[in-house]
Amino acid sequence: MRAIDVCLSPDLMHLYPVQDKTVVVVDILRATSCMTTAFAHGIKSITPFAKLEDCMAMKEQQYVTAGERDGKKVEGFDLGNSPFEYMDEKLKGAKIAFTTTNGTQAIAKSEGAKEIIIGSFLNLSAVTDYLARGDNNVLVVCAGWKGKVNLEDTIFAGAVVEMLKDQIHSDCDAPLAAQHLYTLAMDDLEGFLKNSSHVMRLAKLNIHKDIRFCLTPDQYNVVPMLKNGALEL
Amino acid sequence: MRAIDVCLSPDLMHLYPVQDKTVVVVDILRATSCMTTAFAHGIKSITPFAKLEDCMAMKEQQYVTAGERDGKKVEGFDLGNSPFEYMDEKLKGAKIAFTTTNGTQAIAKSEGAKEIIIGSFLNLSAVTDYLARGDNNVLVVCAGWKGKVNLEDTIFAGAVVEMLKDQIHSDCDAPLAAQHLYTLAMDDLEGFLKNSSHVMRLAKLNIHKDIRFCLTPDQYNVVPMLKNGALEL
Repeated sequence: MRAIDVCLSPDLMHLYPVQDKTVVVVDILRATSCMTTAFAHGIKSITPFAKLEDCMAMKEQQYVTAGERDGKKVEGFDLGNSPFEYMDEKLKGAKIAFTTTNGTQAIAKSEGAKEIIIGSFLNLSAVTDYLARGDNNVLVVCAGWKGKVNLEDTIFAGAVVEMLKDQIHSDCDAPLAAQHLYTLAMDDLEGFLKNSSHVMRLAKLNIHKDIRFCLTPDQYNVVPMLKNGALEL
Repeated sequence: MRAIDVCLSPDLMHLYPVQDKTVVVVDILRATSCMTTAFAHGIKSITPFAKLEDCMAMKEQQYVTAGERDGKKVEGFDLGNSPFEYMDEKLKGAKIAFTTTNGTQAIAKSEGAKEIIIGSFLNLSAVTDYLARGDNNVLVVCAGWKGKVNLEDTIFAGAVVEMLKDQIHSDCDAPLAAQHLYTLAMDDLEGFLKNSSHVMRLAKLNIHKDIRFCLTPDQYNVVPMLKNGALEL
């Protein structure tokens, strides 16, 4: 039987070999939710950059620049980190250069994996259907917050473990912990997360609408995948 | 109000400054449970060693050598890692040199803290009473298993957060997650942990009796504390 594991922080990635795995990168608030939304609205590709300067430099190549630092849009960038910005008709077919505090760093640390895909509640069933059909072992990589574990990414990881439990085995404690937390939270994700540090941090930025949307399962049937350094469908 | 945080793995210690904190090191199965038991039975001191050779060398100075690697007693050591070995009358007044796979490494990584104390379910209330009386911020450091998060240490951390919630504030997600897991597990710790990777690993070594004992709250009223490189009461 295949195995599923969960890396609760990018700073623990040295413990998880990825060569034989499909890695699901998750940064619910809000990088991977934005990416999912973008592809569901016809964006052609998203190239993730760990460094701000590298991302900015892509403007010269007609890329749309996007992302945030510490939850706020970057000065001079075309787009920020709200999923609603990625629903714009004008972006259809665009190539986006993307950098965020945590999400794009988690993608960078997953380099070398057999496959890297993008997960969020918005494409939860699309992701778990894709994983169920595959042959690889699975690692869910939680982007966290500056290395620290966060609840929303952990709960998403738990949702993946829970939905695949009949097909993919978990034999470590991190997936078990995530699964327990998901079953506690599943009936009211927003209520469960209202005391979490990241949700409170973002709530101060007045993005309640973003938070609610990012916690809504199964809005889009897309599975963005990294191919030659860029995310595509 | 004071703050409490939880470091779920020693490999995340770089994220947690310790200078102003009382650090509680926890390795439920079984290092800190053994240490607690030892002090409750009259041991004079326990000097933790991260390296096996350094621990072994203390034999020459009439130390009792103790500990494990990968859950098994070390060849040539006087004592292993079962709490029942530390109840021996003959050990009263002894100085012990101790090394384990995870627990003593977690102590080493907590160096520089204002205080380092030893926590286990066996001295849970003694530890929380001590913390409640203090002035410092608190960090619970989970020893985990070779860098990976484990459930039993996480749940202990959650118990500390839960018992101190009226006095010490937690504003990060790791303590919240630990607290949720503890409230799920508290009515039947052994049952809750029976699928955890570490409990299954140890069960194969036939130490069910150890596991049950290590999960029993409030057997001993001792708070071992690191003083000049050695644990004492």
